[in-house]
Amino acid sequence: MKKNEIGIIGTGVMGASLSKNFLSKGFNISVFDKDLEKLKKLDEQTNDSLTIFPNLISFVESLEIPRKIILMLPAGDITDSCLDELKDILSKGDIVMDGGNSFYKDTNRRYDYLNKFGINFFGVGISGGEKGALIGPSIMPGGNKDSYNKISSLLEVISAHKNDKPCCSYIGEGGAGHFIKMVHNGIEYADMQIIAEIYLFLKFAMNKTNLEISSILSDWNQTEVKSYLIEITSSILSEEDPKTKEDLIDLIVDASSNKGTGKWTSIESFELGINISTITSSLQARIISNFALEREVVGSYFNSIESDIANITLDELREAYYLSKVIAYTQGFSMMKQADSENNWNLNLENIASTFRAGCIIQAEFLELIVEVYKEDSSLTNLLLSSKIKDILIDNEPSLRNLVVLSITRRIPIPTINSALTYIDQLSSPLLGANLIQAQRDLFGAHTFSRKDTEGVFHHEWKQN
Amino acid sequence: MKKNEIGIIGTGVMGASLSKNFLSKGFNISVFDKDLEKLKKLDEQTNDSLTIFPNLISFVESLEIPRKIILMLPAGDITDSCLDELKDILSKGDIVMDGGNSFYKDTNRRYDYLNKFGINFFGVGISGGEKGALIGPSIMPGGNKDSYNKISSLLEVISAHKNDKPCCSYIGEGGAGHFIKMVHNGIEYADMQIIAEIYLFLKFAMNKTNLEISSILSDWNQTEVKSYLIEITSSILSEEDPKTKEDLIDLIVDASSNKGTGKWTSIESFELGINISTITSSLQARIISNFALEREVVGSYFNSIESDIANITLDELREAYYLSKVIAYTQGFSMMKQADSENNWNLNLENIASTFRAGCIIQAEFLELIVEVYKEDSSLTNLLLSSKIKDILIDNEPSLRNLVVLSITRRIPIPTINSALTYIDQLSSPLLGANLIQAQRDLFGAHTFSRKDTEGVFHHEWKQN
Repeated sequence: MKKNEIGIIGTGVMGASLSKNFLSKGFNISVFDKDLEKLKKLDEQTNDSLTIFPNLISFVESLEIPRKIILMLPAGDITDSCLDELKDILSKGDIVMDGGNSFYKDTNRRYDYLNKFGINFFGVGISGGEKGALIGPSIMPGGNKDSYNKISSLLEVISAHKNDKPCCSYIGEGGAGHFIKMVHNGIEYADMQIIAEIYLFLKFAMNKTNLEISSILSDWNQTEVKSYLIEITSSILSEEDPKTKEDLIDLIVDASSNKGTGKWTSIESFELGINISTITSSLQARIISNFALEREVVGSYFNSIESDIANITLDELREAYYLSKVIAYTQGFSMMKQADSENNWNLNLENIASTFRAGCIIQAEFLELIVEVYKEDSSLTNLLLSSKIKDILIDNEPSLRNLVVLSITRRIPIPTINSALTYIDQLSSPLLGANLIQAQRDLFGAHTFSRKDTEGVFHHEWKQN
Repeated sequence: MKKNEIGIIGTGVMGASLSKNFLSKGFNISVFDKDLEKLKKLDEQTNDSLTIFPNLISFVESLEIPRKIILMLPAGDITDSCLDELKDILSKGDIVMDGGNSFYKDTNRRYDYLNKFGINFFGVGISGGEKGALIGPSIMPGGNKDSYNKISSLLEVISAHKNDKPCCSYIGEGGAGHFIKMVHNGIEYADMQIIAEIYLFLKFAMNKTNLEISSILSDWNQTEVKSYLIEITSSILSEEDPKTKEDLIDLIVDASSNKGTGKWTSIESFELGINISTITSSLQARIISNFALEREVVGSYFNSIESDIANITLDELREAYYLSKVIAYTQGFSMMKQADSENNWNLNLENIASTFRAGCIIQAEFLELIVEVYKEDSSLTNLLLSSKIKDILIDNEPSLRNLVVLSITRRIPIPTINSALTYIDQLSSPLLGANLIQAQRDLFGAHTFSRKDTEGVFHHEWKQN
């Protein structure tokens, strides 16, 4: 019997879509799932090039050697137990790719574990949601560099393409691919929140209807802020509820949950000593949206928001959005750079930015500029250090500052746009007050401080009034 | 030979001070340290009621049964290896207290581990720095409730007192004491940062000298914002450098490090699903202060801060400070409440607030009000739900808003004060835009959303323009 070229484990939304993507590219694939119903459903939707297996051993035996298996499972214990079963069935040299949203430190651990059994493990970040998985996602593979050539053609052919270049490139050893996917999702959190804040401002400070906002964002999508998220937000705001015929957006509850990647990104930023305030504030915004009691009670303390039209043009508003978005990407990329130097991944940030240009949720016109900037200087620790980004900063900063002030005076909460401006002000201020914090810590805890005029650390016997 | 009542392991700054505190209260104590030099130094500084032991076995044998030992060690592996040695020497019923800054989940683990050997383990949060440890710290003991009476008198006699009441009370099972100490430190981060921002504003927007600021804070310390941190900041700002005779504050480098408790608090807030933006932003402010290259380059992009005097009175500034501080404590206490319901600690927030009233770094006049509020209603999930705190919110909100706008228009970064106002605006806004985020997530990831008009979760087949 002819063997299949690739095996896929897991037939949820992402696994099924990825399977269909492989089929559309002419691959013969084997698919395994413990859930027979899901398996049969996928079988009915597809052609003879896809074979389903309810048994893991026969699934593995159906594959060409070296076997190439992609796990499309929920992150966590399920992935571990599946890998545990696989290690006993697979042969040395076989390749297992985890295409789930795994935490990169788990991927590091699994990479080392499977290495002991001679199995080549790759942590493969995949972004693009259901549609991306189906027609071409952005793919971030991490693992052993020398073995990458054995899977590169498989992954690159199903990935999105931008100007004929695949949005898939080798990231780095161990969990590097999943780390980059995690930061991608962090940037996604921030951009989604920034757009939500722009929507809030247009609605409350400029009295725009949902359809008007939809149309404004559609116009914006012909400019430098063009992106997938702007595009879909424009669509969302023009969507009618089939049941009530009202604008669907107005019927959706104002409370958002999260699946954890924004939390991971924020936690890792603290471990790395990086300020990604736009990402963290967007996570915190989702969190606070769920505090219904507190919102109801504190909301009753104040009169409603003033409704006079804010003194800002749509162009200025777009400029403010653009710079906020630039800061979100800047913080995310600065985190990648820091992780790179701590993990010796040898990341190629130009390639990573290029990989984000199509297929994924944060695809945006602005990435073209990031690619250019890193092409010129791959050593930059922060995008703001580039003269090209400096120009965006200088040009758009007055509009951003105006927007923040207009929002604050109207009680419109725009935490992430606000934190983008704060980040700029923190980096540009001649003093942050950290000298005072050093002094306080030395006074009460003898933590010592450093001096401007002398090397070393010092403790002072502070008098107390 | 007469046995000693208490044993202390570790003679660093905190261990030595705590030992002297016990001596001053008339206890006979045994002290152990692997560092002979430190041990001898402490011996020379103290009287015959303190006996030093360079050997752990003879140290243990010198103690009354049941033995009562306090570990004053750096958090981490050293504590684990010390406990590992102790478990083989101690007898069933002996009591070990970890007075270090241990992570509360480590304390949970150690509590369970030592329990197997019949050893009563307590995680004891101690705040007050060197001076507090010496003359009376605030103490937060967690562990087995039934055994607490065996150590209560020991701990309460060396603790700070407020109106004759010890600033020490039983917190809860396992790591509860260290959890509360962690959140205490988070609040400490926020209040320190808020004060640093007030210093920055007085300096740059009101052209005050260090001595003038010192004097203003000294006046403030006669009002509702009276606190230990305001008091010491006033002292710091009037301190002269012995070497140069300049103001010492001006010679200290504007970059602050951290020892990790602010990081722990922020990370745990995400795990608990709580927004403690003032604490997180103060951690991020410390982080960004260390990015010297970025600060130099981005600082060169802009002209210096405008120096016209801001249109705000000192009273209004104090009101803004007060409300920011109230939000920091509010967020910290809301985190305790959430952890309480997840861990079934049965925390008494009134007692915890009372414990903070003296001895610790965040001791403040405002705690009297928190005690009152929880005495009235111990079930509050958020202090802002109390009518007493509502009044503070309503009265001081205009000044806070004015301060934030004045700072933003002057490019003075006040991230934590700013985040306090944002928190208020988030809780009081009729809409946060989380409805849009739900829609975006459903469109690209089929994550579903909830509707205002119908129970359940829904997925919509969004059209894409």
